[in-house]
Amino acid sequence: MNRDSNDTQKVKLTGEQVAEHNSKDSCWVIVHGRAYDVTEFLPEHPGGPKIILKYAGKDATEEFEPIHPPDTLDKYLDKKYHLGEVDMKTVEQEEKEVDPDEEERQKRVETMPILEQCYNLMDFEHVARRVMKKTAWAYYSSGADDEITMRENHAAFHKIWFRPRILVDVENIDTSTTMLGTKTDMPFYVTATALGKLGNPEGEVLLTRGARKHNVIQMIPTLASCSFDEIVDAAEDGQVQWLQLYVNKDREVTKRIVQHAEKRGCKGLFITVDAPQLGRREKDMRTKFQDVGSNVQSSGGNDVDRSQGAARAISSFIDPSLSWKDIPWFQSITKMPIILKGVQRVEDVIKAVEAGVQGVVLSNHGGRQLDTAPSGVEVLAQVMPALRERGMQDKIEVFIDGGIRRASDIVKALCLGATGVGIGRPFLYAMSAYGLPGVDRAMQLLKDEMEMNMRLIGVAKVSELNPTLVDARSLHLHTTTVPEDTLGRRVYDPLVGPKEKAAANYSEKAKL
Amino acid sequence: MNRDSNDTQKVKLTGEQVAEHNSKDSCWVIVHGRAYDVTEFLPEHPGGPKIILKYAGKDATEEFEPIHPPDTLDKYLDKKYHLGEVDMKTVEQEEKEVDPDEEERQKRVETMPILEQCYNLMDFEHVARRVMKKTAWAYYSSGADDEITMRENHAAFHKIWFRPRILVDVENIDTSTTMLGTKTDMPFYVTATALGKLGNPEGEVLLTRGARKHNVIQMIPTLASCSFDEIVDAAEDGQVQWLQLYVNKDREVTKRIVQHAEKRGCKGLFITVDAPQLGRREKDMRTKFQDVGSNVQSSGGNDVDRSQGAARAISSFIDPSLSWKDIPWFQSITKMPIILKGVQRVEDVIKAVEAGVQGVVLSNHGGRQLDTAPSGVEVLAQVMPALRERGMQDKIEVFIDGGIRRASDIVKALCLGATGVGIGRPFLYAMSAYGLPGVDRAMQLLKDEMEMNMRLIGVAKVSELNPTLVDARSLHLHTTTVPEDTLGRRVYDPLVGPKEKAAANYSEKAKL
Amino acid sequence: MNRDSNDTQKVKLTGEQVAEHNSKDSCWVIVHGRAYDVTEFLPEHPGGPKIILKYAGKDATEEFEPIHPPDTLDKYLDKKYHLGEVDMKTVEQEEKEVDPDEEERQKRVETMPILEQCYNLMDFEHVARRVMKKTAWAYYSSGADDEITMRENHAAFHKIWFRPRILVDVENIDTSTTMLGTKTDMPFYVTATALGKLGNPEGEVLLTRGARKHNVIQMIPTLASCSFDEIVDAAEDGQVQWLQLYVNKDREVTKRIVQHAEKRGCKGLFITVDAPQLGRREKDMRTKFQDVGSNVQSSGGNDVDRSQGAARAISSFIDPSLSWKDIPWFQSITKMPIILKGVQRVEDVIKAVEAGVQGVVLSNHGGRQLDTAPSGVEVLAQVMPALRERGMQDKIEVFIDGGIRRASDIVKALCLGATGVGIGRPFLYAMSAYGLPGVDRAMQLLKDEMEMNMRLIGVAKVSELNPTLVDARSLHLHTTTVPEDTLGRRVYDPLVGPKEKAAANYSEKAKL
Amino acid sequence: MNRDSNDTQKVKLTGEQVAEHNSKDSCWVIVHGRAYDVTEFLPEHPGGPKIILKYAGKDATEEFEPIHPPDTLDKYLDKKYHLGEVDMKTVEQEEKEVDPDEEERQKRVETMPILEQCYNLMDFEHVARRVMKKTAWAYYSSGADDEITMRENHAAFHKIWFRPRILVDVENIDTSTTMLGTKTDMPFYVTATALGKLGNPEGEVLLTRGARKHNVIQMIPTLASCSFDEIVDAAEDGQVQWLQLYVNKDREVTKRIVQHAEKRGCKGLFITVDAPQLGRREKDMRTKFQDVGSNVQSSGGNDVDRSQGAARAISSFIDPSLSWKDIPWFQSITKMPIILKGVQRVEDVIKAVEAGVQGVVLSNHGGRQLDTAPSGVEVLAQVMPALRERGMQDKIEVFIDGGIRRASDIVKALCLGATGVGIGRPFLYAMSAYGLPGVDRAMQLLKDEMEMNMRLIGVAKVSELNPTLVDARSLHLHTTTVPEDTLGRRVYDPLVGPKEKAAANYSEKAKL
Repeated sequence: MNRDSNDTQKVKLTGEQVAEHNSKDSCWVIVHGRAYDVTEFLPEHPGGPKIILKYAGKDATEEFEPIHPPDTLDKYLDKKYHLGEVDMKTVEQEEKEVDPDEEERQKRVETMPILEQCYNLMDFEHVARRVMKKTAWAYYSSGADDEITMRENHAAFHKIWFRPRILVDVENIDTSTTMLGTKTDMPFYVTATALGKLGNPEGEVLLTRGARKHNVIQMIPTLASCSFDEIVDAAEDGQVQWLQLYVNKDREVTKRIVQHAEKRGCKGLFITVDAPQLGRREKDMRTKFQDVGSNVQSSGGNDVDRSQGAARAISSFIDPSLSWKDIPWFQSITKMPIILKGVQRVEDVIKAVEAGVQGVVLSNHGGRQLDTAPSGVEVLAQVMPALRERGMQDKIEVFIDGGIRRASDIVKALCLGATGVGIGRPFLYAMSAYGLPGVDRAMQLLKDEMEMNMRLIGVAKVSELNPTLVDARSLHLHTTTVPEDTLGRRVYDPLVGPKEKAAANYSEKAKL
Repeated sequence: MNRDSNDTQKVKLTGEQVAEHNSKDSCWVIVHGRAYDVTEFLPEHPGGPKIILKYAGKDATEEFEPIHPPDTLDKYLDKKYHLGEVDMKTVEQEEKEVDPDEEERQKRVETMPILEQCYNLMDFEHVARRVMKKTAWAYYSSGADDEITMRENHAAFHKIWFRPRILVDVENIDTSTTMLGTKTDMPFYVTATALGKLGNPEGEVLLTRGARKHNVIQMIPTLASCSFDEIVDAAEDGQVQWLQLYVNKDREVTKRIVQHAEKRGCKGLFITVDAPQLGRREKDMRTKFQDVGSNVQSSGGNDVDRSQGAARAISSFIDPSLSWKDIPWFQSITKMPIILKGVQRVEDVIKAVEAGVQGVVLSNHGGRQLDTAPSGVEVLAQVMPALRERGMQDKIEVFIDGGIRRASDIVKALCLGATGVGIGRPFLYAMSAYGLPGVDRAMQLLKDEMEMNMRLIGVAKVSELNPTLVDARSLHLHTTTVPEDTLGRRVYDPLVGPKEKAAANYSEKAKL
Repeated sequence: MNRDSNDTQKVKLTGEQVAEHNSKDSCWVIVHGRAYDVTEFLPEHPGGPKIILKYAGKDATEEFEPIHPPDTLDKYLDKKYHLGEVDMKTVEQEEKEVDPDEEERQKRVETMPILEQCYNLMDFEHVARRVMKKTAWAYYSSGADDEITMRENHAAFHKIWFRPRILVDVENIDTSTTMLGTKTDMPFYVTATALGKLGNPEGEVLLTRGARKHNVIQMIPTLASCSFDEIVDAAEDGQVQWLQLYVNKDREVTKRIVQHAEKRGCKGLFITVDAPQLGRREKDMRTKFQDVGSNVQSSGGNDVDRSQGAARAISSFIDPSLSWKDIPWFQSITKMPIILKGVQRVEDVIKAVEAGVQGVVLSNHGGRQLDTAPSGVEVLAQVMPALRERGMQDKIEVFIDGGIRRASDIVKALCLGATGVGIGRPFLYAMSAYGLPGVDRAMQLLKDEMEMNMRLIGVAKVSELNPTLVDARSLHLHTTTVPEDTLGRRVYDPLVGPKEKAAANYSEKAKL
Repeated sequence: MNRDSNDTQKVKLTGEQVAEHNSKDSCWVIVHGRAYDVTEFLPEHPGGPKIILKYAGKDATEEFEPIHPPDTLDKYLDKKYHLGEVDMKTVEQEEKEVDPDEEERQKRVETMPILEQCYNLMDFEHVARRVMKKTAWAYYSSGADDEITMRENHAAFHKIWFRPRILVDVENIDTSTTMLGTKTDMPFYVTATALGKLGNPEGEVLLTRGARKHNVIQMIPTLASCSFDEIVDAAEDGQVQWLQLYVNKDREVTKRIVQHAEKRGCKGLFITVDAPQLGRREKDMRTKFQDVGSNVQSSGGNDVDRSQGAARAISSFIDPSLSWKDIPWFQSITKMPIILKGVQRVEDVIKAVEAGVQGVVLSNHGGRQLDTAPSGVEVLAQVMPALRERGMQDKIEVFIDGGIRRASDIVKALCLGATGVGIGRPFLYAMSAYGLPGVDRAMQLLKDEMEMNMRLIGVAKVSELNPTLVDARSLHLHTTTVPEDTLGRRVYDPLVGPKEKAAANYSEKAKL
């Protein structure tokens, strides 16, 4: 990386000098010990000027770091605004207010469970929820609107039940499979998720290292905290990575990214097609808001503040006009297999086959985009019969992501016809709570579960997984129960168990 | 308005004079500084004589105001009983008892969230529920019987899931549409709801102003707190309003109202057909009761008190004999399009087409009338195929209302064939909590959500919304789960996450 | 009544004399001021000897009263064991232990809500649950096993939704109908329930008076606390009553009962066919147990105590061998219409028609017999189409009971084809909480609801109710949801509303 | 039993001598007063060396006892390592740390309910959960993964509803039936469950005695705490037992076990086919972990500790390569009827018939193996029609186990075609809480319920139970409800009942 645009600089800037430029008329900020004049950039900032102005004349490194890849300033701010090094000793240290929430969190970090106590992927989420910073947790864990789709994603797997075979020799279990021509040890890949440094200061490269250890594929996100090259550099020889792409309005930028990725060895181009606009994630928006101004006076209805959490801030470049017509152009600029990520209905899978792409990911973006969009696995159960009917089942690889927390979820998806599944948040949580060892253990647990599950349904190889091994008849049901008859419920005395001899029956009370 | 029936009055009445008439034999009350002799009117009062007698000889303005339009006394009390102005300085101020509930409420008002923290329509309800007066909240929020239909109205939308399209150019989203010949910016209208001043002293005119700003249509309620003319006057040139009509037993009154509305420019006549009698809303009834007499002695079973909340009080004039035979008469007295509001089954929509009306609103009156009546959107899903089958789909405009809280709900209704949807309570709550800025923001939030949702299902114009974009197969299911096996649930130890190192694991306990 | 078997008695017995006979070798008890020698009767007592021995040598009136009709001793104890009057002044008053539960109950009785605050049938249950004696509440409110059927009975109605008609003249509503030839003002009857004096010292005659006032039919229970004749005597001229019959093993006893009832004017004979053995009602059993011996030492597994609540105690005479072969005999001993009460499947309704009886009650005995037996209304929805298919729909009257709490429940049953419905517990609760005024108000509330509901579905007369007015497609579904994914639920952060300005947000906490 | 391998021993070993061998280089342990050198055995120990090393040089009896049959050391440890008797007076008594959980448990044991208060099988579980040792409870009560299948097992019965017959002579109920040629008094058997001494120091022989008393069959588990012979010895003449078999990788061992069982009189060989690997039971794993090291430092991700609860420790010998090809061999080594235990799909039942075995148990191993495997009763409802279709219904006996808690569950299974049902955990809980009297009462309660249920569905003999008596149409539905709309639920004010007169309404608050 090259930040030395003002290399001739003899004398470092002082904190006082920077501090003078603390308004929208002249706004300097310090990042990683260097000053930048962002006055003219303010109106263009995807996250809005407000958040920058909060740091006008000050050191913004801590806020800047996790949500901007390190090459951001080089890429987006003209060199003439790179003002050079600052003598950090002269920068006034802001005394931070004691944040009681943060203090509580620190205490929780101190007593966090040891890694060996995590027995499944939910456990990492359990720990992460308690030890992550509030805003980071809100960004990772939030979904669109009422978060119904986000929760449905996992719940959908509970509507699929096994039909296990018995008396099959399952001494040797082989969990390996092939995706887009790559042999991999497990039928899952690390899917793309944004802003890895929110969870761990090292960011996405930890996922690269975890993937390497277990020989699974990693999909590199457009919106990573690490730069693309850092993530590729973290891979070892022969380790396969794919590129997830948000298509930029400026197609030249897109072309540069795609061709750079191909050159660096990426083996698949996953074009995100479910995000012409990033969804409203209210949990994220609300957290953000409470941070910056929960006690301010209302500005009335006319001056609606549109700062809407991290998601919106980082996505303004995405092209909402992307359409089927653009596919041939992508096919013209790369030889990587092209996979459409975010397909959500049978008709579009057929179209994808006809458009000649190599794969689709049936996905609703982790429930972060359109609420009450169906789970990937539900769409899968409709897609595969339709493909088979048309003799198209071998013309395209079908992946799903969303809600996968158990190896049994993976097995179900594979039985229904998926080539592989993407897993995102669980590895983020494992990384946020325990770093690389967490990612490692999360993958190991999946592998243990996978072997056990394959044994218990009577299948020794991934290729033997097939639709007769599951009962997915209830998968399409989206029911709510009739709203409860409150008065009736309240007058009902639930049955209780036998009563202890002593008068005081604590536990029974506790139970109530 | 003209309250000066006794203009010759030279000397103002005194409080003492009024106070003498404090019984059912001679009952005077003060409203807005003027005295009225209501002795003879007592038995005719739709809300019963009891509530008036509570204010016999006293100032009743505060109680009177929100539930009577300002022209009420002129209209319903003969001028000879208008006794003229009162010297309000001579009226004894009743010392109000300190109401601890009201004190709590005042505290909540002081700390209410600022408007910008409302991110969706539910948030306004959240705030309104805490800051509205108890009786006002009870009137707005209550539904019929067990309030099952009221809750089902929104829950029904959760049984409809999207089937989004991808790779469609959705750069420019157009949310505008046309209802009954009127171009409107959004496919919803402000539907009629009664007694707006219970929530805000300005009443329905705030909704008029909000609707104007966002160019959506407002339906004026028969039972508004503001007078019809006040609401029409609040509209700007070209702003479209409709009239909601409860049909009076006295058809001349009805005719006068309809023709006046047409003259004042109303563009649609919505005849309420689901309220031959207003429903029993027990939450409302119970609140009322607790206010006036929760400590009185029981009067035994024989003298059953029939005071049944605000709903009953204001509706005694409604004609329960209204029938299909009356429709031609309405067609003869107005050129406005006629729409039947409150249709609840396919057969009646067919009848409506045959009767030559211009539209129907599939509605259960916000769940306030017949409990376990189906949601409008469920009926819609049955109605549209039946109309298409008969080639009638263009002969009538079909609206729905009830339970709409998200733009995704609107989109679902439009996909299933609705021309537009009515939204009532959410705007009342926004208005009650934050006044006009609240209404403004509520509409803006819907617009933001609408654009996003249309983008995310891959549709740029309202006219492209169609049934293939939703999966409504579970919509007709009305199931309850088998009553829980209490003993079994209680002996089950739920799984827990990893344990903190320190002994005291607060959060886990808190969670339990 | 004639208790004076020892009329020649000159000198009253003394308490001391009676007290000597306090063992199973010689056991005297006092009831209503008279002594009885029950030594030989002990082994025959349906409730077991234990409960009598508790009162050996003492006054048993309070315990005896509610669960034995007044003619019990005359009927079942040979006159030679009637020892004559006791000088009650000489009977030692047992000092009762202070029972903290009972003290709490007394406090609740003092502050019980006034009758006018009961707005629906659930409200009476709400009050009764708090003011009734524990054992009485347990007897009335308990059901079989896990009480799943008991709760399903009401819940089943929530699976039936209306399809209301509009624009029908519903000015005049007529709720009257005809059952078994009797014109009645409402399409419900007071069904038979046992042991009315547990709830109110006057017992079933209060229900007789309530029924008279509202011109509805009462079914007299075999197991009433009042004697049959007392209940008939409480009726006025022309008031119709039916007899519910548990068939005695001794058919002569049965014959006597039936013919006596016919002679006294009963207009229908309802033979209970769902109770060859009374169900295990564990709530009742458990309450009983806790009363008599919760602190005793376990007697080990060999000497299992079979005292099983009030239900078992009173039912040992019922004949479990009753079968279809007995029906002609009933037809030979009475001219009353014969109705089988407790039919639970289509096949048996067909058989009933073929056997020439006049009616069936589709019932599961209020959920007190066989758990997971279906609700009457669910069976009804299967029965009526089957009858129509065979042209049998006019050959039999079909009633249902169980779970009816709203007039809308009645309307649904009638739409599905029921002639009328039986209501039991709600009137018991109304009576237990408020006596006759409670029963009166409960019936009045049902009438008010009935009129409103008929208006709102667009039907003016009972005979117009028909299957097209309801959607019962989900009625047969008995689903449980997939057991919850506990770990997943616990790591999910539910969305919250906007936050108050001040730090302490009580209500939100309270809500959690 | 013969532990006297060093019979020549003159002088007892001292505690000091043993204590010197306290490392993995030389590891002696004391069990039942005798010392053993297990140094070489350490790596082979199925439960891992760690747990043994904890007791190196010490007395391990208490830990050893419940999870090893008494003949374990003789069988698996070469005689040369049997070091002879230890003078226990010289063995230092370890002072046990006070475990607050254990102290709490001891208090609960003191106040445990008397046996007569248990009215159903759930009640034993209620008590056992409170009085059992934490690890024992965790082992018995845990299931695989999210324990969804474990809970579904009982819940499935709630999806089956009765269609009872009336007017059938049910005076005499005969609950007896025949399984695999054995007449038994009840249509259930005590199925095999491991490690009985965890619950009661006497172990499985208590179940033998209970089964004898009620004339039901007991299946002897491979993994019993008592030795096979002890359990057979506990049986009386004519008492029938079956053998449950985990097939050993070493077929000679298996052959020896099978032929020994046949010789000792076992009447059925139940080969477990659903456990090529024992499932992950996280509740069990987590408890184990907390016991031995909840405060230790994390060892990082690389050295993952694989100690995974009792289940894994005891099962390493099981052969995962067992297949259909092995069946003829079993048929060649024994004349006992062969039954496959753990069949989970129709296809495999057909195969079983074709393979000539005498029976199958439709079972998912009590939900302890593969999560979201269907309940036995659901599979049964698919199997029986398929068998009848092929005319195979009499060629095989079909049993089920899992989730049976009520006699009504048994009746449902028999209606659907099961020959009999296995019950496991409930008897373990009854035994753990109350010993033999508990087992006795549990069986008696089932018998009482069974008679009542048969009466109430109108069936006098087991052979009359048939599919028309149940409605199992919803049994195959595995639905979850749409994830709740949290914001919506929170703004809804539930209806409340009437309010007490006094201000403070405790109960209503308590209820909230």
